[in-house]
Amino acid sequence: MTVAKKITSSITNSSMIRKMFEEGARRKAEFGEENVYDFSLGNPNLEPPVRFKEVLRELVNDPAAGRHAYMPNAGYQETRQAVADYLSRNNRAEFSAGDIVMTVGAGGALNVIFKTLLDPGDEVIIPSPYFVEYNFYLENHQGIPRIVSTANDFSLDLKAIEGAVCDKTKAVLINSPNNPTGKVYAKEELLGLGRLLEKSRKRLGRTIYLISDEPYRKIVYDGIKTPSIFDIYSESIMATSFSKDLSLPGERIGYAAVNPDISEKDIVTAGMILSNRILGFVNAPALMQRAIPFLLDANVDISLYQKNRDMLCEALASFGYKFVKPQGAFYLFPETPIKDDVEFVSALKEENILTVPGSSFGCPGHIRIAYCTTESVIEGSLPGFERAMKKAQGTGRRAQGKATTGFCGQDAERHL
Amino acid sequence: MTVAKKITSSITNSSMIRKMFEEGARRKAEFGEENVYDFSLGNPNLEPPVRFKEVLRELVNDPAAGRHAYMPNAGYQETRQAVADYLSRNNRAEFSAGDIVMTVGAGGALNVIFKTLLDPGDEVIIPSPYFVEYNFYLENHQGIPRIVSTANDFSLDLKAIEGAVCDKTKAVLINSPNNPTGKVYAKEELLGLGRLLEKSRKRLGRTIYLISDEPYRKIVYDGIKTPSIFDIYSESIMATSFSKDLSLPGERIGYAAVNPDISEKDIVTAGMILSNRILGFVNAPALMQRAIPFLLDANVDISLYQKNRDMLCEALASFGYKFVKPQGAFYLFPETPIKDDVEFVSALKEENILTVPGSSFGCPGHIRIAYCTTESVIEGSLPGFERAMKKAQGTGRRAQGKATTGFCGQDAERHL
Repeated sequence: MTVAKKITSSITNSSMIRKMFEEGARRKAEFGEENVYDFSLGNPNLEPPVRFKEVLRELVNDPAAGRHAYMPNAGYQETRQAVADYLSRNNRAEFSAGDIVMTVGAGGALNVIFKTLLDPGDEVIIPSPYFVEYNFYLENHQGIPRIVSTANDFSLDLKAIEGAVCDKTKAVLINSPNNPTGKVYAKEELLGLGRLLEKSRKRLGRTIYLISDEPYRKIVYDGIKTPSIFDIYSESIMATSFSKDLSLPGERIGYAAVNPDISEKDIVTAGMILSNRILGFVNAPALMQRAIPFLLDANVDISLYQKNRDMLCEALASFGYKFVKPQGAFYLFPETPIKDDVEFVSALKEENILTVPGSSFGCPGHIRIAYCTTESVIEGSLPGFERAMKKAQGTGRRAQGKATTGFCGQDAERHL
Repeated sequence: MTVAKKITSSITNSSMIRKMFEEGARRKAEFGEENVYDFSLGNPNLEPPVRFKEVLRELVNDPAAGRHAYMPNAGYQETRQAVADYLSRNNRAEFSAGDIVMTVGAGGALNVIFKTLLDPGDEVIIPSPYFVEYNFYLENHQGIPRIVSTANDFSLDLKAIEGAVCDKTKAVLINSPNNPTGKVYAKEELLGLGRLLEKSRKRLGRTIYLISDEPYRKIVYDGIKTPSIFDIYSESIMATSFSKDLSLPGERIGYAAVNPDISEKDIVTAGMILSNRILGFVNAPALMQRAIPFLLDANVDISLYQKNRDMLCEALASFGYKFVKPQGAFYLFPETPIKDDVEFVSALKEENILTVPGSSFGCPGHIRIAYCTTESVIEGSLPGFERAMKKAQGTGRRAQGKATTGFCGQDAERHL
């Protein structure tokens, strides 16, 4: 063996989802694409807004020179300014172009932020369930995830967060609307978190950053608005992308925005710009950067996701599934009727339904259903969901929810 | 101070080039854009080939669904296959799609390769002068650069490389055509390197990889062809991009290709694909990936760079500058007429000529001139180059070339 030891173990640990993909592909080949109900991936099925194609067409026909050349590592000045203006319109704070770094998606933004902030061994507090990729992102920069539980409705457990703050704490990382639960943290919760961090900051005599991963910010239902972190805590940085609200995850365009009032702003932003360069991103893709100023107020038709959510929630509830109704994103995170979520994922697979076990998100006893899919996939899946529930109930092994098992809050198994 | 200690020191160390940029911008504002001769950056001035715009236009009008969605982390199967076919046509080896990982430029490819191969403390041997960014890329993955000198004509010093091989050696990293020297390693040199690595491999009982960074592969002059690493050593991986040969560095599209005969290929490629995902790249930008199959045989008009090279070489030689004539890339790396290259860069700046000191490439006593610029910039700069040489000669401080000083081969100052 000559490759890195760490990557070898990561490959082994991430092989479960690969096996699921292979199994899914095998089933699609055997039973027909239309008879396999794939809820495993958060790959939006909606097309980008019509305006996106119009803008691309205009940009491609632009005869100006240098449109695909290097630009400053932070991105085009016009794009950064347009994003800053957009944020100023939607927050109390006033942003300038200097507060924005254009990135290779939100994944790029988070790595840029972690590289800037983390010394080896620094801890980042993450409420669970959480997006498993965070573990890898922290590991890239020798950071340590410190996983804390959330309340039964997946709202923030401020006591748990306060209890986790220690000398090594560099940041708290939140994700709202949340993957995998669809939870949107309420303004009151966030204000409480802000006060807690302010207090800890004074007590420890140094900054604890609030990092907010918000790619689903615009994907919210029932008239809810995602509260702004910038209005609640000065030492905050947002990572986001246009992957979900414009349905273009493959194009890798996003940004990081620092709170205009953040301390030592020059160093934080210079660190992020340098990190963007030296991590090998260099800059966010040029053509997409040029499209963004024209698309900041665009959005895919959320009502279609909401319809999916409602159809799925109504049916699963009638079959006896227990869950917190999602307020945003396109994930549903029901409890499994048997304790072993991996076993229940297998049972669903027998019904040609592909989902992801909650243990992959630090929260066993649940499954994640990504409903960014078509109505017909949802309709087709329902009899299978019902049969799997009936079979599980028939075994007499009772549902072991989050509250009962207390499992949620453990380090996610790195399946995804 | 609350950001990471390492990023803070990196910001400080990389501030020199930022000062040069600021100084350049100030001079452009004061003297007029056309009176400042900027040779500081390897940002190609040629426009992408006409075919690129045609292809983009066709792709943007493609009505098919899912064109901007996630695809496998390694990239589109069609794109990987097209790259594999291209490599098979241009090498003795037969490549398959599985040997290719599409990446966010060559910078992305190198980080993916290092993440896959390096355990903390592993050493990578790099012949100097070398692209300073390699230091940062290695540091990202806790690798250690082991810098070795090259011969007077910048060809490989195999004895120096052999002397640097130790228990910690994981790879040798070469870059041909070379930044900053324009050197193209001859097939004979590479065969010698292959034999050396094969011998070391047998002696140490484990693989030493050959990593070749080849973004300038197609930018070669006087009928030279860049020899293939795949034909000389089985344990080889190429990192490359379309940034220079298609003039689209801002779009961040490149790839890594493993030798079809590499040992433990499944693990190496699985590690690279996983690294592409977990470093936050996720995948190379979708639209550019779809363009690549139509552009593999396209190239910018190299004859324009060759004309620049010839004009510059002829003039600088007549002024008394000493240099090895570049065979590829678009850099000239002359000796400085005074020992202190940073001082000579300042002297050129007084002539409104912007260059980069050789010490930024591990090779003091030289400057790098990036001639991927217009003929008029070169013409306009010549009187300044002549005056700076005359002034330096007037000081009586003799030229201190590479051979005399023996400076070349030290760790590059992280100015760039």
